[in-house]
Amino acid sequence: MLLATGDLPEACFRRYLVQDYLFLLHFARAWGLAVYKSDTLTEMRRAQRLVAATLDVEIGLHIEYCRGWGLSEAAMGSEPEAPATIAYTRFVLDRGLAGDRLDLEVTLAPCVIGYAEIAAERLDDAATRLAGNRYREWLEMYAGAEYQDLAREAAAALDEQFARRGGEGRFSSLAAAFATAARLEADFWQMGLEAPR
Amino acid sequence: MLLATGDLPEACFRRYLVQDYLFLLHFARAWGLAVYKSDTLTEMRRAQRLVAATLDVEIGLHIEYCRGWGLSEAAMGSEPEAPATIAYTRFVLDRGLAGDRLDLEVTLAPCVIGYAEIAAERLDDAATRLAGNRYREWLEMYAGAEYQDLAREAAAALDEQFARRGGEGRFSSLAAAFATAARLEADFWQMGLEAPR
Amino acid sequence: MLLATGDLPEACFRRYLVQDYLFLLHFARAWGLAVYKSDTLTEMRRAQRLVAATLDVEIGLHIEYCRGWGLSEAAMGSEPEAPATIAYTRFVLDRGLAGDRLDLEVTLAPCVIGYAEIAAERLDDAATRLAGNRYREWLEMYAGAEYQDLAREAAAALDEQFARRGGEGRFSSLAAAFATAARLEADFWQMGLEAPR
Amino acid sequence: MLLATGDLPEACFRRYLVQDYLFLLHFARAWGLAVYKSDTLTEMRRAQRLVAATLDVEIGLHIEYCRGWGLSEAAMGSEPEAPATIAYTRFVLDRGLAGDRLDLEVTLAPCVIGYAEIAAERLDDAATRLAGNRYREWLEMYAGAEYQDLAREAAAALDEQFARRGGEGRFSSLAAAFATAARLEADFWQMGLEAPR
Repeated sequence: MLLATGDLPEACFRRYLVQDYLFLLHFARAWGLAVYKSDTLTEMRRAQRLVAATLDVEIGLHIEYCRGWGLSEAAMGSEPEAPATIAYTRFVLDRGLAGDRLDLEVTLAPCVIGYAEIAAERLDDAATRLAGNRYREWLEMYAGAEYQDLAREAAAALDEQFARRGGEGRFSSLAAAFATAARLEADFWQMGLEAPR
Repeated sequence: MLLATGDLPEACFRRYLVQDYLFLLHFARAWGLAVYKSDTLTEMRRAQRLVAATLDVEIGLHIEYCRGWGLSEAAMGSEPEAPATIAYTRFVLDRGLAGDRLDLEVTLAPCVIGYAEIAAERLDDAATRLAGNRYREWLEMYAGAEYQDLAREAAAALDEQFARRGGEGRFSSLAAAFATAARLEADFWQMGLEAPR
Repeated sequence: MLLATGDLPEACFRRYLVQDYLFLLHFARAWGLAVYKSDTLTEMRRAQRLVAATLDVEIGLHIEYCRGWGLSEAAMGSEPEAPATIAYTRFVLDRGLAGDRLDLEVTLAPCVIGYAEIAAERLDDAATRLAGNRYREWLEMYAGAEYQDLAREAAAALDEQFARRGGEGRFSSLAAAFATAARLEADFWQMGLEAPR
Repeated sequence: MLLATGDLPEACFRRYLVQDYLFLLHFARAWGLAVYKSDTLTEMRRAQRLVAATLDVEIGLHIEYCRGWGLSEAAMGSEPEAPATIAYTRFVLDRGLAGDRLDLEVTLAPCVIGYAEIAAERLDDAATRLAGNRYREWLEMYAGAEYQDLAREAAAALDEQFARRGGEGRFSSLAAAFATAARLEADFWQMGLEAPR
């Protein structure tokens, strides 16, 4: 992975950063939808925490981090969404509205949990080089304790919801939605790689 | 049951007929929502048949039937919805949007399947008097083969969806939603009974 | 108004308090829906503040206040929703999903803005008696600066959205939805008055 | 345009046909959503006609037409959706749920009305060659009176809804959503062109 070795062209990373900003706006909408789709106060409060984590923490940190790469919030906000950004975000929202909250969270998982898995895996990899790697901060953020905790909590919430709303009959449909979401998440990364350099 | 003996005051039945017209409009919306929430062409076609059954058959028959009671479509359309009509229809639509299609159909069941059960039960009851009963046509419509088939098909669809999307974990939540819907359905009838005579 | 004179039977107020707790849960869901329905970060943040105002402040204060009336959160949470509670909350959510965010906020207005208007009007009324009135705290909360500000902000947000998403063509439909919501809000109060004493 | 001259490689057209089948399933869901989002019986019936036009006519004709190209329904149904198919269809559904019915129909317009415009334009173009063109039937279907009528009706419905639910304040937001939808529609065609040959 080019991020982990520091060999990713900067133009690719900038494209990724801009689209990730646009992505996060819809991510926050998805957690707002989860507030609506909650059955209990406890469920609502968890969704609310994730709206806040996205709007107050993630987007805030992202804007600050992007400034270090010469990208202002206004500039990012005026960029058109890439088709890959639209495809993943709207797929999630449609699954979330057509299905129930479990359908919604399953399609969010490749993003929420996937980032944690990939970052941890990269840091454990012998080929990863942190010294002098301009993407180090980014890698350490997602491999760090705070994000890893959030991902673990998301995985636990999925298990809890599967027990309460799932059942073996749903497994194949949930797995198919997860697979599509994971494919769209990969396309999102690929869109960065294909940025004109 | 006063309908079955023919002893129901006509003002109550008229009130029920007007509100049932308003109810059916939202019932059709619920089946439109089921088209949206379908995962397969087969599911979509079943929901489409129920949109058509509501808009083309039920509402059509209802308007014609009401004309016999001196109620024009325009007059019914300009009546305000009773709170009991709003409560049941919007409860169904909200469950259907917050949950998945199984949640939607479970809350529709007290209406779709309930009418069939009640009408059949009435016709079997010794106290029921058809001769000279001005509600006879209404009772026979819901006890008739066509409507009974529709209700049986709805029950089978619920079972099929429970196998595919359900699981024991969902049972208590589905049962609670069904119970609330059944209570709101009963309130809907009660609203008719409480019409000023 | 019996609250303002202190003459409201306590059983009525208790019934109102329990149902208002159940109401607030769906009110928070409505603001979660508004996060989903937002077009900009600014809109999202306003909706998020209202989710937080409901879940962190209103429900919190309500639970504490109800404890003073001998009502525990667990007891309130296990009460069934009254038809009037279901009718108003689900009407709002359905308008919010069938229409756009302006439709949603217009149907919330009788509650958000209505409480502020009514409380202020009561305090200005010569017939209102605060000394020894066991509902004084409740009246002063909604007539107080904090709530009055929130209501003014809600009215300004409606105006701003009407400029951006409205147009004269929408006025009659918005007015009709507002009128229905206001009627359902009044029914909600009436439900308290009709509590068995 | 390669279709109009008959120079389009068949592999591209086959890819387009398969994805168009998958597209139509979500298109039918969008019209089901329009049934739900209808305010009047007239609006509901128009949406219902479009569900029927999609499920009974378009998908039916498409399956039959594809058979002539050696593509069975089962084969098409088991293909994964291309990102371009997901992006356009889910963008439409999300706009339709986040906004009102006008938002929904505006994002459907590049497809419904766009096909009619493009086909008519192609048939009028001197460079178009019908004799021996294996895409002739396809061109004539969308340029034909039946489809042209459907598109004209859709344009009239947009105008009518804009008068009723629009207003100048909405214009820029609707135009932006239309522009994104048109871009995603173009990407959908491009996805066919980029099929491995």
